[in-house]
Amino acid sequence: MQMKVVIVGGVAGGASAAARLRRLDESAEIVMIERGAEPSFANCGMPYYIGGEIASRDKLLVAPVELLRQRHRLDVRTRHEALSIDRGAKSVRIRDLQDGREYDESYDKLILAPGAAPLRPPIPGIDLPGVYTLRNLADADRLHAATLAAKRALVVGGGFIGIEMAENLVRRGIETTLVERNGQVLTPWDAEMVAPIAERLAEAGVDLRLNDEVIAFQVDGEGIRIETKRGDSIAVDFAVMAIGVRPDNHLATDAGLEVGARGGIVVDEQMETSDPHIYAVGDAVQVRNYVTGQPTLIPLAGPANRQGRIAADACVGRQLEFTGVQGTAVVGLFDRTAAMTGLSEKACRAAGVAYDKIYLHPANHAGYYPGAEGMSIKLLFCPDEGRVLGAQAVGGAGVDKRIDVLAMAIQAGFTVFDLEEAELCYAPQYGSAKDPVNMAGFIAAGVLRDDHPVMYSEVIVDGILPANVTIVDVRTPAEYAAGAVPGAINLPVDDLRERLDEISIDQPVVAYCKVGLRGYLATRILLQAGYNAANLTGGYTTYQHVAAARRLSESATAPCPAGSL
Amino acid sequence: MQMKVVIVGGVAGGASAAARLRRLDESAEIVMIERGAEPSFANCGMPYYIGGEIASRDKLLVAPVELLRQRHRLDVRTRHEALSIDRGAKSVRIRDLQDGREYDESYDKLILAPGAAPLRPPIPGIDLPGVYTLRNLADADRLHAATLAAKRALVVGGGFIGIEMAENLVRRGIETTLVERNGQVLTPWDAEMVAPIAERLAEAGVDLRLNDEVIAFQVDGEGIRIETKRGDSIAVDFAVMAIGVRPDNHLATDAGLEVGARGGIVVDEQMETSDPHIYAVGDAVQVRNYVTGQPTLIPLAGPANRQGRIAADACVGRQLEFTGVQGTAVVGLFDRTAAMTGLSEKACRAAGVAYDKIYLHPANHAGYYPGAEGMSIKLLFCPDEGRVLGAQAVGGAGVDKRIDVLAMAIQAGFTVFDLEEAELCYAPQYGSAKDPVNMAGFIAAGVLRDDHPVMYSEVIVDGILPANVTIVDVRTPAEYAAGAVPGAINLPVDDLRERLDEISIDQPVVAYCKVGLRGYLATRILLQAGYNAANLTGGYTTYQHVAAARRLSESATAPCPAGSL
Repeated sequence: MQMKVVIVGGVAGGASAAARLRRLDESAEIVMIERGAEPSFANCGMPYYIGGEIASRDKLLVAPVELLRQRHRLDVRTRHEALSIDRGAKSVRIRDLQDGREYDESYDKLILAPGAAPLRPPIPGIDLPGVYTLRNLADADRLHAATLAAKRALVVGGGFIGIEMAENLVRRGIETTLVERNGQVLTPWDAEMVAPIAERLAEAGVDLRLNDEVIAFQVDGEGIRIETKRGDSIAVDFAVMAIGVRPDNHLATDAGLEVGARGGIVVDEQMETSDPHIYAVGDAVQVRNYVTGQPTLIPLAGPANRQGRIAADACVGRQLEFTGVQGTAVVGLFDRTAAMTGLSEKACRAAGVAYDKIYLHPANHAGYYPGAEGMSIKLLFCPDEGRVLGAQAVGGAGVDKRIDVLAMAIQAGFTVFDLEEAELCYAPQYGSAKDPVNMAGFIAAGVLRDDHPVMYSEVIVDGILPANVTIVDVRTPAEYAAGAVPGAINLPVDDLRERLDEISIDQPVVAYCKVGLRGYLATRILLQAGYNAANLTGGYTTYQHVAAARRLSESATAPCPAGSL
Repeated sequence: MQMKVVIVGGVAGGASAAARLRRLDESAEIVMIERGAEPSFANCGMPYYIGGEIASRDKLLVAPVELLRQRHRLDVRTRHEALSIDRGAKSVRIRDLQDGREYDESYDKLILAPGAAPLRPPIPGIDLPGVYTLRNLADADRLHAATLAAKRALVVGGGFIGIEMAENLVRRGIETTLVERNGQVLTPWDAEMVAPIAERLAEAGVDLRLNDEVIAFQVDGEGIRIETKRGDSIAVDFAVMAIGVRPDNHLATDAGLEVGARGGIVVDEQMETSDPHIYAVGDAVQVRNYVTGQPTLIPLAGPANRQGRIAADACVGRQLEFTGVQGTAVVGLFDRTAAMTGLSEKACRAAGVAYDKIYLHPANHAGYYPGAEGMSIKLLFCPDEGRVLGAQAVGGAGVDKRIDVLAMAIQAGFTVFDLEEAELCYAPQYGSAKDPVNMAGFIAAGVLRDDHPVMYSEVIVDGILPANVTIVDVRTPAEYAAGAVPGAINLPVDDLRERLDEISIDQPVVAYCKVGLRGYLATRILLQAGYNAANLTGGYTTYQHVAAARRLSESATAPCPAGSL
C-alpha cells in the first residue's frame, strides 16, 4: 500500500524529512510544497552571499529541484503555498503562486516545516521598499542587489543575523549602523561574554547603538530615514530588520493544532502534533530545553535537520526520539567567534536553576607555539554535584572546538569533575596538555572542593562589595600600574608570603591577577595563612568585560554620541 | 607537622605534582630532583624549536627554575640525579651531577616522575656522535645545532617524534630520509587512515622507506653512513633515533617496586605504587586502557599532568582517581592532521573486542562557504549496543575538533545513537548542520539498524570478495572513467531505478560512490527492490586509502627505489 506524505516547506527540516523518507520508503508518494522558488537552500549562508564572501549564488542551492526530483523522486512544487489543512478530510489546500490556481492535495501523513518568519513590528514605514528582512533567497537577492549601490545601511537587531549582516555590509564597504533594543548584542549570551563582540563591531567601524529602537522609517530621497526612540535620525540607503523570528504557525493554528505559549507548534518526541497524522519540525515547533526540561523555542538548523529525520522515521512507524535542544550556537564576526551551549547565567536565573560559575582566559593552543590566540570561557555548573549547566566562549581560533566538547559534556550529564579527566588532543599546534576544557574543570572543581572560594567581578563593579574587604592585586607592579581594580592594593604573588603583614587578617580578602591563575595561588596562600580569602574568578580580564558590559548596558542613559548623523 | 615530599623528575608529571602540592600544602617541604639543567620544559615543542618554527629557546622554558623556587617555594635541584631508593629508611640517594657529590635525602612521600627514555637498540655504531635521540633540552640543543649545518639527515622511526622531526628537518631545507620498520607510519593508527600522511611526507620530499631497518651506523667523512636491512646505504650528516620509548623504571625496579609486563611502574588509582609511601606518574607508569580495561603504556603529556595532580592530592590524603587513558592523540604534518581516540581496529583485534566500523569523508565546514577542507573519519563501535570504541581522523582543519568531541563520547560511554543527537556548533565557517560527528552517528546507526549493510574495501583489495558479487559504481560516467574499482559496472544512482534490470537479482550487490552517500542511497533502492545489497563504506575514497596502505605495507617486497643514494 503506497503511503502519501505531503511536506509543507522544503528547507532544512522539510528537505531532511523528504530525503530520509525516500530512503526509508521507495514506494511512498512524497509531495513537497515550497513557497519559494528554490527548496533546500543554505539559509545560513545568505549573509555571506550578500557580503560577497560566497561569490556564487549557486553555492547556496544545496539540493536543487532537479536533484530532489531525479535522485529522491520527490514531487517538488516550488512557488506553491499551503493555505489550509482539512484535518477531517486529510487534505491540504494549496495555491500555485504562479497562476493563482488553488487545489486540494490529500495526505496520509502531513509534515509541517514552515519555519519561522522575521518579526516585522507595526513600525510606521516598515513596508517601505528599502526596509528588508532576510528569510529566503528572494530576500537575499534583493539585499545582494541593494548592497552593490549602497553607501550607508542600517541593521536593526544585534542577534545572529544582525551581527552577520553587519560584518557583511562592512565587507561591502558600506557604512553600517546597528541598532539593538537591549543593552548588549547577542542576547542568548550573558552580557559580559559578548562585550568583546560589541568592541569588535566598533573596531570594524560599525556604529553600534544599544538601548535604542527604530520608531519610524521615512522616505528620504533615494533612501530612507530612520527615527529612533532616543531621538536620533539616521539616513541610509536601506535597512535590514533582524530583530528575531516567530514560528510561522498559521497553518497549524488555523487547523486547531496545539500551539505553545510562545507560538511554537506542540509536538511529542516523534515530532507528532496533537493530530496523529500530522508532524511538525524545525523553527516552527516548540522543543524541550535539554537542560531545564522546560518548553522553549530555539530556531537552529541542526535540530531542524534531526527533527526532519525523526518525523520521516515516524511516518514509516519507526520510533526515534527527539530528546530536546541544548541551544548550542556559534556566530562569527571577522576573526572573532562567540559560541555557547546549554544555559546562560540569565537563563539559569529565568528557569530558577541554582548555579555556580567560573571564568577563564586560556589560549587555544600551547603558548610556546607561534600563533596562539586567546579566548574567554564562562562555565556554569550546579553548586551541589557539579553538573555542567552551560558554557559560553568568545575569542579567536578554537572557541567552537571547546564549546563542541562542552556540548558533549552537557549531553552526557557530565560534572565538572568529569571535565578534569577529559582526554583531548594535545600537540602544541592544537591544544595544551591541560586543555581549556580541563582547566575549566580544574577551576570549577576547586570551587566545589572549597580550594578557592571565588568572588564575582559584578559585585565590585556594581559597588556592592562590603567596604571592609581588602582587594589585593597580585600581579606585577607594572601590570598594576597599567590599570587595576579601584581600591586594590598591589602585592605580587611571588612576594605575598613575605608581605602578609601588609594585609589585615581581620578583614575578608579578594585576590586577583590578570586571568585568575596567580589569584588562585594567592588565595591558597592566604587561606592557609588563616585569611578569609576568595579569588576574583577570571581576574582583571573578566572584571574589564563586566565593566564594559555595564557601560554598554547603561549607554541608554548617556547622550547619543555626536557626529553619527 | 611538616611533610617532606621528594619528587624525582621535573617535567610534565613531576612539575604538575610539585605545583599542585604547594597549592594544597603551604608548609610541605618539596624537593624536586631533575637530572637536566631545566625543569618543566615544553618537550612537545622541541621538534618545532629544532625546525625554527619556535624561534626562541626560552619559549620552551614553561616554568623556569626561579619561578618554581620563588612562586612555589620548591627546593629545585637541577643536574641532580636520583640513584637509588632506600624504602626502609625512606630516603633517596642523590648525585649532584656538577661536582659528583652524593648524598641521601629523606622523604615522607616520594613521587617518581622519571619519564620514558628513547629506545637505543644495540645497533653497531649507535653511539657515534652523529646519532641523536630527543628527550630533553640538551638533546634539542644538539639537534638544533646539527640542523644549521646539515644538508642530509635520517630519521629512524615514523611515530609522533619521527613525523614531527621529518617535518622540521624539511622546514630547515634538509634532505630527509625516514626509515620505518613497519609497513605504515604512525602505528597507533590503522594503516589506511595514515596512508595520506605517508603521501604528504613524500609530497614534501621526504624519502620514506617503510619495512626497513637500520642495521649499522658508520663514520663517513664528516657525517655518517647508514646500512639498512634491505641493503641500502645512506650517507647523511646526522641521524635521529625516534623508534619509541621505554619507561625509565630502573629506580623503581631496583627498589623492588612492582612493574608491569612492558616495564611500566604499577600504580593504583591514586598513583600509589606497591609501596604506600611512593607514588609514580607520567610516561613511566602502567595505566589502564579506558576502553578495554587492560593495562597499557601510553606516554602522553595530558595524562601525565593529571596523574601529577592526583599524586599530589594523594600525598595530602585526598582521594582523587585516575580513571585510565583513552589514547587521545594528535600529530600535525604541515597542513595535515592525524588524530585518534580510543581503540584502533588493530587494537580491537589485539584486545579481542568485537567491533563494527564505518568510514566517511566530510568537509570541516559547510561546502558552500569558501575554504572547506576535507577529512576522513573512521569510527569503530560495538556491533551490539553501538557503544563507540574508537575514532580516527586525518585531513585538514577541524580534525582535532571532531576527535575531541568523539573523545568526550567515549568518556561518556556514548553509543552511535547518541552521536546522531549531538548538538554541535553550526555556522557555515565552523561546521555543518549535520556535523561530521552527527554524520558518523547516522551512518553507524544505519548499519546497526540494518538500513544499509556495509562492505569493507579490504575485502575487495585483498581479493576475497566472492566472484559472484556484482560491484556497482553509482557515480557519474565521468567519475567512473577517471578511476574505479576493478570489475565494477557503472550505473549512476540517479538512473538506477530505471536500470535495475541490468543487475542480476540472484547475485549479491556491492554499491559504491565517491564517499559513501550516493552508495547508501543506491543500497536503499536495491534493498527495497529485493536485492541482497551492501554499501562500500567510505566509497572509492576509502578504497583508495586501503589500496594505498596495502601497497605501502608490501613495499618491503618491492625493490628499493633507485636514485636515493
